[in-house]
Amino acid sequence: VNLILLEHHDVSAGGDVTLGGTRAAHLLDVLDVSPGQAVRVGLLDGPCGTATVTAVDGRTVRLRCRFEPTVPERPSVDLLLAVPRPKVMGRLWAQLAALGVGRIILTNAARVERDYFDTHWLTEATYRPLLIEGLQQARDTRLPLVSIHRRFRILVEDELDILAPTALRVVAHPGKDTWIEETIGSHDRVLLAIGPEGGWNDFELSLLESRRFVPIGIGPRTLRTDTACVALMSLVHERLRSR
Amino acid sequence: VNLILLEHHDVSAGGDVTLGGTRAAHLLDVLDVSPGQAVRVGLLDGPCGTATVTAVDGRTVRLRCRFEPTVPERPSVDLLLAVPRPKVMGRLWAQLAALGVGRIILTNAARVERDYFDTHWLTEATYRPLLIEGLQQARDTRLPLVSIHRRFRILVEDELDILAPTALRVVAHPGKDTWIEETIGSHDRVLLAIGPEGGWNDFELSLLESRRFVPIGIGPRTLRTDTACVALMSLVHERLRSR
Repeated sequence: VNLILLEHHDVSAGGDVTLGGTRAAHLLDVLDVSPGQAVRVGLLDGPCGTATVTAVDGRTVRLRCRFEPTVPERPSVDLLLAVPRPKVMGRLWAQLAALGVGRIILTNAARVERDYFDTHWLTEATYRPLLIEGLQQARDTRLPLVSIHRRFRILVEDELDILAPTALRVVAHPGKDTWIEETIGSHDRVLLAIGPEGGWNDFELSLLESRRFVPIGIGPRTLRTDTACVALMSLVHERLRSR
Repeated sequence: VNLILLEHHDVSAGGDVTLGGTRAAHLLDVLDVSPGQAVRVGLLDGPCGTATVTAVDGRTVRLRCRFEPTVPERPSVDLLLAVPRPKVMGRLWAQLAALGVGRIILTNAARVERDYFDTHWLTEATYRPLLIEGLQQARDTRLPLVSIHRRFRILVEDELDILAPTALRVVAHPGKDTWIEETIGSHDRVLLAIGPEGGWNDFELSLLESRRFVPIGIGPRTLRTDTACVALMSLVHERLRSR
C-alpha cells in the first residue's frame, strides 16, 4: 500500500478522519505510525494529499488531511474484456486498477462459459475492495467504472458509443501483424478489446471491425487472459505516454 | 494448453509415446481425442511437431510424433529478479515462461526478506511443472534456465558475465525517465533487472550501474512485482520485435 484511500464519508469538513479496521492496522502494523507522522492519502475519485497522524488510540488512528487542489485524471485506457474464468478474473481486478484503467467493460462472447457470470468475482462487494487495493498500490484515486454486459451485439452496436465515444478502438487478435504504434495517431484515449481464451469467433470479430475496432497483433505467443491483459494494457499505456 | 510437451524419455526412437496422467487426461477430457486425430506436441528443449493419436486405452493415450527439423530459439530476454514474496513468486513462474524468458536469475537484495528463500516455490520440484505449464500455454519448448543467488554482490560482479555476457543490461527503477527505446541499439539480447517491492537500495543500484546496467523508467505508477514483471517483459519483447 503506497497510499491510504479514504472515502468521502470518512472525512469531516475540516479534514479529520478516524480510521479503524484494515487501514488502521496497516498504519499501525506496517508503517508503525505515531502522532506527528505524515502519511500519503487520497480521496476516492478525489485528490491525493498528505495526512498527519493526530492520535493513536488502541487500534484506532486519527488523521488530519490536506488534499491537493487537483484530482488525478482518469486513466486514458479503457478495457473491453470477454469475461474470463473466475480464478483469472479474481487475479485481474487489482492488477488492472494498478496499471490504470478508466473503464472495465465486461462482456459475454460465444466462447465465454455461461457460469462465468454467476461467480462472486463479478459482484461489486468482491471487486470494489480489489480495485481499491490496486489503486493504493499505484497511488491513484480514480476508481475504474465497471459494467457487465450479457449481450455482446447490443453492447457493441448500441452501448459502446455511449461508454467510449471518442477512444481509438483496438482489438487484440492472434495472427494480426499490425501493431498499435501504427494506429494510435492523435487519439488520447484507447479502448482495448481482449477476447476469451479461445478467441473471438468470426461473427464477433466482424462486428467489432464494423464498429471501428482495428485489429492489432499480440505477438507470436498465446497468453493466458490475465497475462495478456497486463501485457497489452502496459503496451498501450507506454504508447500513449511516448507519443 | 496449446501444445503437449514431451520429455525426451517419453519418446521412443521411432517417435512413439504412451501418455498417462495429466497429459492423457487433458487429451481425453479437454480435447476429447480419438484415434487418427492430430494434436500439437513439442519436445522439451527440442522441436515442435504434430502427433497422431494411434490408440486410446482406458486413461492411456498412444501417439506417434513427427517433429519439425528445427528447434525454437531460446527467448531473447533474461530476467534478473530480486526474490519476491512467496505468493507473488508462485504466480510468476508460468507467466514468465509463457511470455518467453531465456534465463531467470533470482537474487537476494537488502529489501528481500530472508525467509523468502525458504519457500517451496523456489524448489525445482515446484517450479518446473509451472514453467512447463507456461510453455504449453505459449507453444514454446525452451525451458527457462533458473539459478538462485544469495549473494548479490558476487552475482553482479562475477557471475553475470558468465550467465549473460553479451546482453544489453537494463534495470527498472522508479523515477527514471529514460525508456528502453533509447538504449536498445543493436543488441539482440536484453537482461532486465527488477528489484524488490521496496526497490533496490543505493548500493545495489550503484553496483548495477557500475556493471553496465542502464536505468530505465517504469512509468508513473508503482506496481506489484508480478504485474511489473509481466508489464516490463512484454515491453522489452515488443521493443526487440519491432526494431
